[in-house]
Amino acid sequence: MAQNIYDNAEFFAGYSQIPRQVHGLAGAPEWPTVRAMLPEIAGRRIVDLGCGFGWASRWFREQGARSVLGLDLSQSMIARARDDTVDPEIAYEIGDLETLDLPEAVFDLAYSSLAFHYIRDFGRLVGSIRRSLAPGGALVFTIEHPIYMAAADPRWLADAQGRRTWPVNGYAHEGERRTDWFVPGVRKYHRTLATTLNTLIGAGFAVRSIAEFAPSAVQVAENPDLAEERERPMILAVSAQATTG
Amino acid sequence: MAQNIYDNAEFFAGYSQIPRQVHGLAGAPEWPTVRAMLPEIAGRRIVDLGCGFGWASRWFREQGARSVLGLDLSQSMIARARDDTVDPEIAYEIGDLETLDLPEAVFDLAYSSLAFHYIRDFGRLVGSIRRSLAPGGALVFTIEHPIYMAAADPRWLADAQGRRTWPVNGYAHEGERRTDWFVPGVRKYHRTLATTLNTLIGAGFAVRSIAEFAPSAVQVAENPDLAEERERPMILAVSAQATTG
Repeated sequence: MAQNIYDNAEFFAGYSQIPRQVHGLAGAPEWPTVRAMLPEIAGRRIVDLGCGFGWASRWFREQGARSVLGLDLSQSMIARARDDTVDPEIAYEIGDLETLDLPEAVFDLAYSSLAFHYIRDFGRLVGSIRRSLAPGGALVFTIEHPIYMAAADPRWLADAQGRRTWPVNGYAHEGERRTDWFVPGVRKYHRTLATTLNTLIGAGFAVRSIAEFAPSAVQVAENPDLAEERERPMILAVSAQATTG
Repeated sequence: MAQNIYDNAEFFAGYSQIPRQVHGLAGAPEWPTVRAMLPEIAGRRIVDLGCGFGWASRWFREQGARSVLGLDLSQSMIARARDDTVDPEIAYEIGDLETLDLPEAVFDLAYSSLAFHYIRDFGRLVGSIRRSLAPGGALVFTIEHPIYMAAADPRWLADAQGRRTWPVNGYAHEGERRTDWFVPGVRKYHRTLATTLNTLIGAGFAVRSIAEFAPSAVQVAENPDLAEERERPMILAVSAQATTG
């Protein structure tokens, strides 16, 4: 199964305080970019893979989604999502994306925010998602960008002119990366951009658009810390649609 | 028009000596990767955009292409390509990819090796290529990878552990980059991977596969200098197919 950091009390305490968990979608600077990549939501059946506290699941229903199934590995997250939601058309269940088998042809949209880079077997997951989609269904997800993930020691450097510079090494070496994030040794999996996109295409998706999130000038003015996201992308977003056959 | 470095005598003298110009496709380590991304060649009408000395143009005919049109900005390159080719089904012409208007629906494959990153207006070029393709036609091209292109000072650094590390900064800042390559101030244009792929999709292409060239263990054993290409990709390859409508 996937590493479950979220049910570690120390991790959960820290994680619960990051802006996107306190403020939901409004605390996620990439959200306007991702929202623009979503298909029509009204009337659709949606699965939210790695739903966390359920912020996106509830937003989909506010936009008129017919139903939402939120899945997350973490009991703490699912408990909190259930506590925060009063809507009979949203169901939250514990589910491990590493081993999950989704029912076939029952969703119009599979959505996932910053979860897939924790999954070792991306090909298996994408195949399961593809089969779970009704004809013409869509997959929209974000992951940590491989530029952000690749390096053995992913911390800002200075170049010869002293300019803030992001390190890239080991890009072609896919697989496990360990990072310290509230707790030591959080495990994630680096894949090249080619692997991510070719896996989707090979599983029967057409890539509709991709985004490498960079904040707007307005966002940087409001939150100067975001300026570094213009130096190197931290988040990759992909919008794909199931092809026929 | 695009900057024409190739007709600068100093540049041309140096450029003519790089392995891929001396040895042709066998001198291009990414060629096996790119070759595997090509559609069927036999019987097809091909345009080779930025054909240089005509190495690929001649290879296509060896594989049974019906005809090849090689285009290049450089008079020196076209003159050499003509000198090196005895084949009535290969035509070489001077053409500037920045302003070129290709005839409509006459090619089955548009191919380009390491030329498009010199072009400022990629959207215009891709539109012209799309219109030049017969139904189901393909576009296969390589460019310098945006990870390789982005930084203001693109030279290896060492990280805190002394590991060889490639710099990335200014990734979201698209546009001109200047580099010194045989002559000072060679002009090229950085685009994000999202821009490159979204431009293709928006122009009526389906992305079939991408590659971020990394050498195999055999290639590194034969040429240890190639090992650095596993640290960060220098070359992006894209295979796309014209969609209907």
